[in-house]
Amino acid sequence: MKPRIKILSLLVCFCLAAPIAWGQVRHEIQLPDIPGYRTLKCDFHMHTVFSDGVVWPTVRVDEAWRQGLDVIAVTDHIEYQPHKGDIPTQHNRPYQIVAGRAKERDLLCIRGAEITRDTPPGHFNAIFLHDVEPLDTEDFLECVKQANEQKAFVFWNHHAWKGEEKGKWLDVHTTMYDNKWLHGMEVCNGSTYYPSAHAWCLEKNLTLFGNSDIHDPDLRLQSTPQDHRTLTLVFAKERTLEAVQEALRAGRTAVWFDDQLIGRADYLEPLFHACLEVHAGHHRYKNTVYCTMTNRSDVDLNLRRQGRQGPQTISLPAGTTGLVKFTAPADVESVTLSYEVTNYLIAPNQSLPVQLTIKLP
Amino acid sequence: MKPRIKILSLLVCFCLAAPIAWGQVRHEIQLPDIPGYRTLKCDFHMHTVFSDGVVWPTVRVDEAWRQGLDVIAVTDHIEYQPHKGDIPTQHNRPYQIVAGRAKERDLLCIRGAEITRDTPPGHFNAIFLHDVEPLDTEDFLECVKQANEQKAFVFWNHHAWKGEEKGKWLDVHTTMYDNKWLHGMEVCNGSTYYPSAHAWCLEKNLTLFGNSDIHDPDLRLQSTPQDHRTLTLVFAKERTLEAVQEALRAGRTAVWFDDQLIGRADYLEPLFHACLEVHAGHHRYKNTVYCTMTNRSDVDLNLRRQGRQGPQTISLPAGTTGLVKFTAPADVESVTLSYEVTNYLIAPNQSLPVQLTIKLP
Amino acid sequence: MKPRIKILSLLVCFCLAAPIAWGQVRHEIQLPDIPGYRTLKCDFHMHTVFSDGVVWPTVRVDEAWRQGLDVIAVTDHIEYQPHKGDIPTQHNRPYQIVAGRAKERDLLCIRGAEITRDTPPGHFNAIFLHDVEPLDTEDFLECVKQANEQKAFVFWNHHAWKGEEKGKWLDVHTTMYDNKWLHGMEVCNGSTYYPSAHAWCLEKNLTLFGNSDIHDPDLRLQSTPQDHRTLTLVFAKERTLEAVQEALRAGRTAVWFDDQLIGRADYLEPLFHACLEVHAGHHRYKNTVYCTMTNRSDVDLNLRRQGRQGPQTISLPAGTTGLVKFTAPADVESVTLSYEVTNYLIAPNQSLPVQLTIKLP
Amino acid sequence: MKPRIKILSLLVCFCLAAPIAWGQVRHEIQLPDIPGYRTLKCDFHMHTVFSDGVVWPTVRVDEAWRQGLDVIAVTDHIEYQPHKGDIPTQHNRPYQIVAGRAKERDLLCIRGAEITRDTPPGHFNAIFLHDVEPLDTEDFLECVKQANEQKAFVFWNHHAWKGEEKGKWLDVHTTMYDNKWLHGMEVCNGSTYYPSAHAWCLEKNLTLFGNSDIHDPDLRLQSTPQDHRTLTLVFAKERTLEAVQEALRAGRTAVWFDDQLIGRADYLEPLFHACLEVHAGHHRYKNTVYCTMTNRSDVDLNLRRQGRQGPQTISLPAGTTGLVKFTAPADVESVTLSYEVTNYLIAPNQSLPVQLTIKLP
Repeated sequence: MKPRIKILSLLVCFCLAAPIAWGQVRHEIQLPDIPGYRTLKCDFHMHTVFSDGVVWPTVRVDEAWRQGLDVIAVTDHIEYQPHKGDIPTQHNRPYQIVAGRAKERDLLCIRGAEITRDTPPGHFNAIFLHDVEPLDTEDFLECVKQANEQKAFVFWNHHAWKGEEKGKWLDVHTTMYDNKWLHGMEVCNGSTYYPSAHAWCLEKNLTLFGNSDIHDPDLRLQSTPQDHRTLTLVFAKERTLEAVQEALRAGRTAVWFDDQLIGRADYLEPLFHACLEVHAGHHRYKNTVYCTMTNRSDVDLNLRRQGRQGPQTISLPAGTTGLVKFTAPADVESVTLSYEVTNYLIAPNQSLPVQLTIKLP
Repeated sequence: MKPRIKILSLLVCFCLAAPIAWGQVRHEIQLPDIPGYRTLKCDFHMHTVFSDGVVWPTVRVDEAWRQGLDVIAVTDHIEYQPHKGDIPTQHNRPYQIVAGRAKERDLLCIRGAEITRDTPPGHFNAIFLHDVEPLDTEDFLECVKQANEQKAFVFWNHHAWKGEEKGKWLDVHTTMYDNKWLHGMEVCNGSTYYPSAHAWCLEKNLTLFGNSDIHDPDLRLQSTPQDHRTLTLVFAKERTLEAVQEALRAGRTAVWFDDQLIGRADYLEPLFHACLEVHAGHHRYKNTVYCTMTNRSDVDLNLRRQGRQGPQTISLPAGTTGLVKFTAPADVESVTLSYEVTNYLIAPNQSLPVQLTIKLP
Repeated sequence: MKPRIKILSLLVCFCLAAPIAWGQVRHEIQLPDIPGYRTLKCDFHMHTVFSDGVVWPTVRVDEAWRQGLDVIAVTDHIEYQPHKGDIPTQHNRPYQIVAGRAKERDLLCIRGAEITRDTPPGHFNAIFLHDVEPLDTEDFLECVKQANEQKAFVFWNHHAWKGEEKGKWLDVHTTMYDNKWLHGMEVCNGSTYYPSAHAWCLEKNLTLFGNSDIHDPDLRLQSTPQDHRTLTLVFAKERTLEAVQEALRAGRTAVWFDDQLIGRADYLEPLFHACLEVHAGHHRYKNTVYCTMTNRSDVDLNLRRQGRQGPQTISLPAGTTGLVKFTAPADVESVTLSYEVTNYLIAPNQSLPVQLTIKLP
Repeated sequence: MKPRIKILSLLVCFCLAAPIAWGQVRHEIQLPDIPGYRTLKCDFHMHTVFSDGVVWPTVRVDEAWRQGLDVIAVTDHIEYQPHKGDIPTQHNRPYQIVAGRAKERDLLCIRGAEITRDTPPGHFNAIFLHDVEPLDTEDFLECVKQANEQKAFVFWNHHAWKGEEKGKWLDVHTTMYDNKWLHGMEVCNGSTYYPSAHAWCLEKNLTLFGNSDIHDPDLRLQSTPQDHRTLTLVFAKERTLEAVQEALRAGRTAVWFDDQLIGRADYLEPLFHACLEVHAGHHRYKNTVYCTMTNRSDVDLNLRRQGRQGPQTISLPAGTTGLVKFTAPADVESVTLSYEVTNYLIAPNQSLPVQLTIKLP
């Protein structure tokens, strides 16, 4: 067996060189911080070969890093283990495998699991667990209680994935809610938005989540306005796991879904003003004023006029500057235009209202 | 335990719906057939979680299908099993897992393995195996003999990956060659081209290969001229595994590497004429003739003049039509221009010479 | 002045080398011929600096050539000449300037003009003119009559561009129609589709047009499914101007607008079958059959099931192959699936119905 | 003629709405300011239909604005007027036409002209002219003197465009230089780099220029690292024409050419440090330290190690963050790595040397 050992030691460097694409690069997501908080880009729902995913856990770190994420939670199904004939069940292994690689890449990584029961009651993610094993228990509420005893944060995943009928709020959910065992809901999961989850979060003060729930490899090289993972933005006091946990408990999140931002006005409004830079007017010809506005973010800005002044719509694709022309009398120093941001959603079917103040030339 | 069973049966359809992206589409590679043969796009070297790869075997089928491949061989390392603490070694499992999915997608799939020894003697792929287990044996030549007793096709991988010094042709290789146990070499592996392998293949009549050797997920949605997997083109009598095997034994291959085609002139010349459509001249002004040429393939065509007539260079990016202007007397019916195709390589540093005959207007 | 002459002769070759990008290439549009006819890609409406456009006429040839068009008509406004202070009006100059360059590039080029009156009656293109000058006359009907006396083909442009109210069919249009002076309408102009024009064309047997009406440089390097000029497809007996004229008179056109094809079922149905290649089923597992279909065109195919068999929708992006799965009993040789092509429009709000026959394995 | 007037007034709004794509957006170029100076993106060489270009002058404003430029000079040939049969020569018209549109878009626009003589002496741009007409004079040196009497800035264009032999420095150039009538040279023109111009600029203290010399429409929607206009970066005290002029006189420029920056070390070094953000190491495992570096610019950064510490090469594509791993003993607070930036050129074949200081964790 001696020769074999020698072979293996050489192979180690083969494997460092080839499969770990060391030169791989990261593209930051342009979603600025807001006053008082860091805007962290997070995905709290994903799978690996240790449940029904098809990638080794480290792939989840590499994908998230190159796409500009700050925080991930690996959340394999506890009860559903279709590969267990080849990979014997070990609920804590995925986290153990990703933890080191995450540190090397300065990615924050959370131990999680998906409690996967019949629908209803449905699927729930428990994140910030210390040990997944105790959750592998038959009784559903016992499992949820176990998670909470570990101070885990528990949220309801894609509640209506089998239809609104199967996603109703039942007594079991009330029990969880009343015991303070349920802390959030996925308003968006993958390519689906659940308006009913959105409404419940606002009504019951639950934290809003948007997650990928990826099982396949994520093929995206970077996050672009046109093609990105569904993400949860967490407004945290600093870039640490403790700060993420505090922000989730305080409900300071928003969801980046398709070309929309979904969240409470308290956070979307400062985020909007951090994204849009309104420049002073640079030219006037008679009563016509010309100014420019720059969208510093990776989310398009689609504005619809609410007042009487300014163009009817202003459309600023991510990362671009637009020329805006409007009329204003010569004797005023600035004007304030009233718009709504049609792709910033503060409640189902409700856009964020904003005011744009422009200094005149 | 009864409730658990019910949960699982529901989950099966969850998993069919979500992770298996059924609507996923395939982009054919534009590399036309040549007279007498189908041009099959093949990758004979790739890894999964069953050795040091990071994807479940089915991912290799999905990637190959969407990228327009016809044939793949899954070739996990026999001796190098870094995940075996989590996934106990089973050499035949990767093939068993991919076989069904490959049939659904009409992809031809070959059982293979990588014999992974110290360098020298190096790494060798054995493909068209019936059973990988007997190859897991200590003695290297015994292992190669085992493969050949199964009628496997054996080729030497990335022979100089540790430098030309460590990739020398040694007695052990002569033994394999003399026993007819070695049938080909990788001229290209991933992003590396080995001119010495190219020379040896021509000199010793070995079959030329170009393979990906992927360990990571392949992020490419499709094969493009600018970004594609290193592939082996096999000129086969039909699209079956038997025909692939026959073609490999007969040495009818070429390699698509970066923006180059590498192969014997016997196959590159007809392939060139299948790729380039030369139209009759459409306009004449005095002695100046105008004609167009269309590159019907996914490989750029870069031509350099060898004779005295025609433009000094003709550059036809993949899939485009170029306007070509040259002078010709009024009283001839056609002209023949002499060029070399600088990105079609028939030996190290040797381009394919071609003749273009153009009917004059 | 002698030195100046020498300077100029040298400059000629400077200008041949630099601004005329000789190596510029053409990307053919993938829209196949139909039985009996060539499918020509045409744009019959565009402007240059000789009216209110901002490019020299040759630019229109270069753009059309690289984008894969076969036929263009340059149609500067007769009555609207905003640059005439710098460029004195000469209605026939744009055609004279483009004609030679079009021949070099094998592009068919038509002499046209836009009759540009108040709306109503609106703007009308006259194409296949021999001399534009006589159309520069005050009386509108006299102008239209002049065009017809030259055997020009006359169509109504963007009839409702100032709103449906200003685009009504009036007595003046009836006069034109009754005199057979009006032969077609723009169903699509630039990024606008006019359902009322679509309905009138079907009702009054007018030829359907879709044109760009470009004034700016067209920045597109090639025509892609996502980003292309609005075009008229002409189903012509051959690729000549005479054949185009015959096809227009016979109403054999369709419009490529956004990701839609708009036209009569007589031509869209054979075009659909020329675009979609349905392969025989390649695999069966119990009652489940797997087959693939290839969209050979540059227009996406979005199919919605009309019958009871087959997937509810089939979505085949341009140039891709899709995997289709359906159930069929073991004892039949083929099945015929009924679908509608939701982005092939045979009348306002009416999709093309199609039948797909699949040989079973 | 009264009805005609009414038609025209309506057409004016047609033309405002359609051909002037008002919603067109601008993409800023990411090339940061350096201490004490704004980094302005400038193109001082371009043509219109008023000489041998093929676009109306306003097109030059639209292109420059959307591509993120700050300053343009329209520089039509004085002596070469191939369109004059259609557009009678008026040397000051191009500037008059662009000036208003430039103001609306906050683009700085300079009146210029290209003095276009035989080669030798060659072509020279005069910018910051007040009146182009006096330069239309037969004697070359008289023309250059005229330009200088207007306080114009004069630079030699693409001096070796007809070969180094025809681009020699002759007595006439010495006369210009000694009279202080020649202030700069194009080191890059379009897709050509002239090392001899580069050397002369350094030797004779001439200002370095890189310009597009566009005649055709510029099809680029935005400036990308892979595809952008050749530009002159001007390090100006503020964003005004006066400041541009002062900076040109002081030689504070660099050239963005392909994926290279070319300029004096005095400006490239601070620009490099403004582009590259080096983060403190975030993780240590034994002696291995992990840190990240972010390239905040639109120019790739290709670093090659000069010292003994750090990876041999660091490749940071535009806008990305890279992970860098190196060894360092545990008891030091920071390390300084020595590299050269292979695509920042401070003289022909000479890269910029840089030091990277990294705080250790």
